[in-house]
Amino acid sequence: MVAIVGASLTKFGKRSEDIFTLTKESSSPLVRKFREEIDFVLVSNSYSGEFNSISGLNNLVTTYLSLDYVPSLRVDNTSGSGGTSLLVAKSLLDSRVARVVLVIGVEKMSTKGTREVTSVISSLLPPRERSLGISVPSLASIMTKIYMKKYGATRESIAQVAVKNHRNGARNPYAHVRKEVSLEEVLSSPLIAEPLRQYEFCPISDGSASLLLVRDEEAESFTDRPVYLRGIGTASDSSHVSSREDILEMRAVREAGRQAMRQARVDKVDFAELHDMATILEIVEAEALGLLERGKGWAQTWEGITEVDGEMPINTSGGLNSKGHPIGASGVAQAVEAFLQIRGEAGERQVKGARFGLAMSMAGFGNSATVSVFGDEP
Amino acid sequence: MVAIVGASLTKFGKRSEDIFTLTKESSSPLVRKFREEIDFVLVSNSYSGEFNSISGLNNLVTTYLSLDYVPSLRVDNTSGSGGTSLLVAKSLLDSRVARVVLVIGVEKMSTKGTREVTSVISSLLPPRERSLGISVPSLASIMTKIYMKKYGATRESIAQVAVKNHRNGARNPYAHVRKEVSLEEVLSSPLIAEPLRQYEFCPISDGSASLLLVRDEEAESFTDRPVYLRGIGTASDSSHVSSREDILEMRAVREAGRQAMRQARVDKVDFAELHDMATILEIVEAEALGLLERGKGWAQTWEGITEVDGEMPINTSGGLNSKGHPIGASGVAQAVEAFLQIRGEAGERQVKGARFGLAMSMAGFGNSATVSVFGDEP
Repeated sequence: MVAIVGASLTKFGKRSEDIFTLTKESSSPLVRKFREEIDFVLVSNSYSGEFNSISGLNNLVTTYLSLDYVPSLRVDNTSGSGGTSLLVAKSLLDSRVARVVLVIGVEKMSTKGTREVTSVISSLLPPRERSLGISVPSLASIMTKIYMKKYGATRESIAQVAVKNHRNGARNPYAHVRKEVSLEEVLSSPLIAEPLRQYEFCPISDGSASLLLVRDEEAESFTDRPVYLRGIGTASDSSHVSSREDILEMRAVREAGRQAMRQARVDKVDFAELHDMATILEIVEAEALGLLERGKGWAQTWEGITEVDGEMPINTSGGLNSKGHPIGASGVAQAVEAFLQIRGEAGERQVKGARFGLAMSMAGFGNSATVSVFGDEP
Repeated sequence: MVAIVGASLTKFGKRSEDIFTLTKESSSPLVRKFREEIDFVLVSNSYSGEFNSISGLNNLVTTYLSLDYVPSLRVDNTSGSGGTSLLVAKSLLDSRVARVVLVIGVEKMSTKGTREVTSVISSLLPPRERSLGISVPSLASIMTKIYMKKYGATRESIAQVAVKNHRNGARNPYAHVRKEVSLEEVLSSPLIAEPLRQYEFCPISDGSASLLLVRDEEAESFTDRPVYLRGIGTASDSSHVSSREDILEMRAVREAGRQAMRQARVDKVDFAELHDMATILEIVEAEALGLLERGKGWAQTWEGITEVDGEMPINTSGGLNSKGHPIGASGVAQAVEAFLQIRGEAGERQVKGARFGLAMSMAGFGNSATVSVFGDEP
């Protein structure tokens, strides 16, 4: 198995810098220290063509970072690219193709307006669903209605995810939206996809996050406090959300979680970073992963269980909801948060005694998921 | 190490079918036979966003092939994506993340006109060079002039690459341009980038190619004639072609070749598939790989050494030059040709007694290269 021996990110948000400058900002603390050691670069990115009119991003990035002779590739799995990059990094290391892998997640999205960004992202839907005008927010709307009806969840409990995540984000210097919002503010923000409102969706963000990974046995020669990837699982589901038996099932999330937890040999984690592109998703994913009880995640959220000082802290970073969601960077940034939490470096949002953490990186609307479990020992 | 246990491709060319139909056409012979075994899908593709307004291609493809529950990712390294996909497949297999990997290379380019395709592909150049109006064909033009001057190469010897490759392509039922061309026809075709002419560049093609890979020890339970990946190497060079010391050096190609040959434990291969996006590249790459003598590749080409029945057959498939160059599919199709040659199934273009073959898949203008060496035994 492998370990993270360095992690770094940029502030997420509407950034004036171009995509190359963002990759440099997140990776340079690692490159400066380990330039001679890095022998593979993975660039986690999905939309450099659509948003930045750039192709071959990985080769341009290595040149920009003066890592000309280091081989690289671009890993794309839309919003799940970050988790998938960890899986590829682990494979390159375990198979001894590489010894020191630099993963750089990046997306520069603010070059386009909201309407255009939504249209580009909807290009991940199957042509049939797309032609019906379905978008990712509208799938979240359907999921919310079904969840509320099936489990008798209150509207407020779902909005509470945004209240909590903005509170966490306000304590994360790298988050996009650094302000707390009240339940009233969430519920009176503009309606996006009935019943979900603006503060319940992630903003459109630019940003980059970087990780340095090596095999377990070498980790302590890079840092005295490595964070170990103890388990990683990946699974897939139909891209036709409408053809899934139950939209609340999230098969890919559940299966990837099972694989990762089994491999990690842990029963319980101390915190989790989930894919809260919309508030409802955090609850349904947490249930699929067994972090919250099936059908009761809304009530547990309302009770405060998922707060930083709760029994099962979720999205201490602010999550996609408040930290922001630069597509290719998001899954990488989840691992950065796990790195900080497990090393006790998460500042005001530190989970006390955090030793094991989980990150779930998801493509599309549960089309695929990669779950990573991290720990303070191998 | 790993082995190819199945290979298949579509006819390359201007195809009326959409990108999904093309992936199905190339992969269905493998999926039909091994549906229950496949546990990872790699989609080698670079430009589905730019050419087809599609993102998340890998997840849409698994759904389209009714492989909903099989995890997948998109591997992008522009025109070197195919070779890079082999490297990722090998890593997933060797590290036991996967047991049976389906690699599908695909690009559907004919949705756009020549001018737009050239502009999209030029987006892989560094912004500075791009703003100077440099394109990939113009780099080939510069390389040709420098090569001719340095080594006293004749203009005809370089054009001869196109004559040979069109002759091979005419014998490949899957090639885009299935007609022979004479030296006179090549030299009188429209000027594209002085002194190179139209028949010396690859056409704009649609197409898909698929491979099924497993670990060596399992290969014979899938087919009685596996083709073994004996070695694979990858290397990189500056994306600023103008900042390389010598444009003829092709450092990435040379280094990747050295790694692959050393790993493969062979001194000589019986044939090679190279990245002849322009005629001159075949010669310079063959020299960098030690397949032809430094500075004499032009003369050796003229003498017929690289013909199917020559001492060192190159691009028996027709190469990019005549078979076509659907970006993400090209490197995968090179491996398909190696599979056919080593199994003695290459029909009219069969190299007699072919046991070992090499494929070089390149990104940009030598920005990165992956070299694979195949053989009939592990």
